[in-house]
Amino acid sequence: MSAHRVVIVGGGFGGLDAAKALGNAPVSVTLFDRRNFHLFQPLLYQVATGALSPGEIASPLRVVLRKYANIEVLLGEVVDLDVENRQVILSDSRAAYDDLIVATGATHHYFGNDQWAALAPGLKTVEDATEIRRRILLAFEMAEREPDPQKRRSWLTFVIAGGGATGVELAGALGEIANDTLRWDFRHINPADAQILLVEGESRLLPPFPPDLSAKAERQLVSLGVRSLLGARVVNIDAEGVTVKTGDCEEHIAARTVLWAAGVRASRLGKVLAERAGAPLDRAGRVLVAPDLSVPGHPGIYVVGDLANFPHQTGKPLPGVAPVAMQQGRYVGRLIRDKLRGRPVSPFHYFNKGNLATVGRNRAVAEFGKLHVAGFLAWFLWVFVHLMYLVEFENRLLVLVEWVYNYITRNRGARLITRGENTRTPDRA
Amino acid sequence: MSAHRVVIVGGGFGGLDAAKALGNAPVSVTLFDRRNFHLFQPLLYQVATGALSPGEIASPLRVVLRKYANIEVLLGEVVDLDVENRQVILSDSRAAYDDLIVATGATHHYFGNDQWAALAPGLKTVEDATEIRRRILLAFEMAEREPDPQKRRSWLTFVIAGGGATGVELAGALGEIANDTLRWDFRHINPADAQILLVEGESRLLPPFPPDLSAKAERQLVSLGVRSLLGARVVNIDAEGVTVKTGDCEEHIAARTVLWAAGVRASRLGKVLAERAGAPLDRAGRVLVAPDLSVPGHPGIYVVGDLANFPHQTGKPLPGVAPVAMQQGRYVGRLIRDKLRGRPVSPFHYFNKGNLATVGRNRAVAEFGKLHVAGFLAWFLWVFVHLMYLVEFENRLLVLVEWVYNYITRNRGARLITRGENTRTPDRA
Repeated sequence: MSAHRVVIVGGGFGGLDAAKALGNAPVSVTLFDRRNFHLFQPLLYQVATGALSPGEIASPLRVVLRKYANIEVLLGEVVDLDVENRQVILSDSRAAYDDLIVATGATHHYFGNDQWAALAPGLKTVEDATEIRRRILLAFEMAEREPDPQKRRSWLTFVIAGGGATGVELAGALGEIANDTLRWDFRHINPADAQILLVEGESRLLPPFPPDLSAKAERQLVSLGVRSLLGARVVNIDAEGVTVKTGDCEEHIAARTVLWAAGVRASRLGKVLAERAGAPLDRAGRVLVAPDLSVPGHPGIYVVGDLANFPHQTGKPLPGVAPVAMQQGRYVGRLIRDKLRGRPVSPFHYFNKGNLATVGRNRAVAEFGKLHVAGFLAWFLWVFVHLMYLVEFENRLLVLVEWVYNYITRNRGARLITRGENTRTPDRA
Repeated sequence: MSAHRVVIVGGGFGGLDAAKALGNAPVSVTLFDRRNFHLFQPLLYQVATGALSPGEIASPLRVVLRKYANIEVLLGEVVDLDVENRQVILSDSRAAYDDLIVATGATHHYFGNDQWAALAPGLKTVEDATEIRRRILLAFEMAEREPDPQKRRSWLTFVIAGGGATGVELAGALGEIANDTLRWDFRHINPADAQILLVEGESRLLPPFPPDLSAKAERQLVSLGVRSLLGARVVNIDAEGVTVKTGDCEEHIAARTVLWAAGVRASRLGKVLAERAGAPLDRAGRVLVAPDLSVPGHPGIYVVGDLANFPHQTGKPLPGVAPVAMQQGRYVGRLIRDKLRGRPVSPFHYFNKGNLATVGRNRAVAEFGKLHVAGFLAWFLWVFVHLMYLVEFENRLLVLVEWVYNYITRNRGARLITRGENTRTPDRA
């Protein structure tokens, strides 16, 4: 095996598209991931709210890359790098590379309050999603059994920290669950009495979108019973609820369910790259990459996706969204092919096809350059873009069928309260 | 609320069909379950082997019973009974009944070796199924990364304790995974090299079936690469494998994956019924019920499903299968209606429609009285019976579509290695 060895760390959008771009090239590719599947994260909130099952938005990496004989997939966590010897270090072994692509993404960030993690789960993994689903459904179950009105109220109060796309999507789906899905399911409570609060530090929701769409998203949420607290910050979380600070005023809100969509931080390999390869990091721990996505001074090490800060195009970092990661992954894959053939390489350029965020079952906001769309049309575009990707990805036509079926019947078939293995007692929050 | 109060404990096949039989009757029904969903247990092994997602074989109890205004569903675990005051005791409250139906089923039984539970999971809950799925898939992943041939062999050795229907179904599905599903997915191992051993204490597989079908099932398993060890008992399980005793000979088999399908024991409420109502129990902890399924001496307390031992029809206990539980649940529901109208009640009678067990993707054995069928026709009947039930149950036509699709494409879409919430490190067995 004297082939040029490429190691890819991470099988998300960036790593997977890098691998595909190297499929059947004269290189030997090894993709490491801690999980055996690629996750379609943009639909993860639909698992968290019981509309889809985890299996429907995840595909085994082996299956996705099966057709490329030059690619192997290995389950394992890369914990360190040996830059001198060009090796990645796993917990139990090493692997050598000629080119390295790091695509390990980002995780939640509790701004120094890691004790909040247990009280307010974020939404990054399949386990996060089923945990959030468990908490939401359990809250309604507990409210149904609670005779004390004040305690019942706190079971029926949901606080979401963070008014970006994830927070807005979660809040919209929760509004839909309370007003629609569960409408006829309880005898002692009216699920529509649920109070859903969306807390955002900026003065408007969806800060990366233009202000007119932010305002429209807020109005759409209101019609789903979601109240937005703008210019407000969550300053404390305890078992009873959250403390929210607006200006100089602090208020404690009794809420048994708190969800975290407020911040992300680059994954740990950013720090490893800084230590081992002198990679410059930004405040969020992302690697400030060169125009060709390499680590400055290390032409054989590339960073793509949420772990990379690419400021060369607009002066600001590109957003941490799937299209950026995919285009970067593909770019690096092609760059390695071109390098080996001695072809010149031009810098990475992101082609922005537009921004979409969905609000509940038939509303969304969309930005395509100067064109701003809100309401049903935007929602339809959202469905089209996301489900078409899934369909194309692994022949997931059935997910589309299921989705349309659930949409028409207002059904949420995956409404299961499950937990870690071998839980036999009822779950208590 | 002066209506006649019926409390049902457990939302499995027995409890659910009892509730349905009481739907819109002039009684007030409360169904307690520890989980918020009804689980279609006969297809649970398909979750364990990655063919279906948990959400596809589970339905929220609230949704199933929504249309009956006289039935409420409450999430909670009944831990004790107050027979004098006719109340069930939950961990945090009490509920009064006039008639009580106990349908809490059975759990695994490790014959006094509860320390085996962590080493060899059984298959009763959704969490069990995803845990088994995790172990099976992880074993192939670890084998792919293992350079030592002996250790690799032990990752590729799977032992299933128990050759009843569950054990046979698991073994068949595992054979299919190794020989078919994973065939092109690995670079360093051949999944078909996997060794699958089915250990059964009796002298043949599927003891409740007639001997000719047992022999056919064994032959079908052989063609899937499954070897049956008959007249053999698992006498020890450790982290390295199992010790199997055949006659006087003990042998240690190195196997990193051991699954338990060998024994079930009645759920804990059987013991509570014995203590509080003097219910007679059999050796497996099941309640020996009267011909009308009541606890002897307690005409208002009924036991249905796997928790009941009903010997009055054949002299032997009826088997612990879904059709028995469903017919018993329906019988007790109707009995309560008839009692209230002063109508006479005849004893319970089980109508046996036949027995089915499936072996892999296109083989099965079926017994309908004197008619014995094996092979593709039996498999087709099995599909028909099980999927038609699901389709009828909650309009689950999509599961049928997905299933047929998976069958044709030999796909197992739900091949995810997941674990308890917030697991971020790679899973090691």
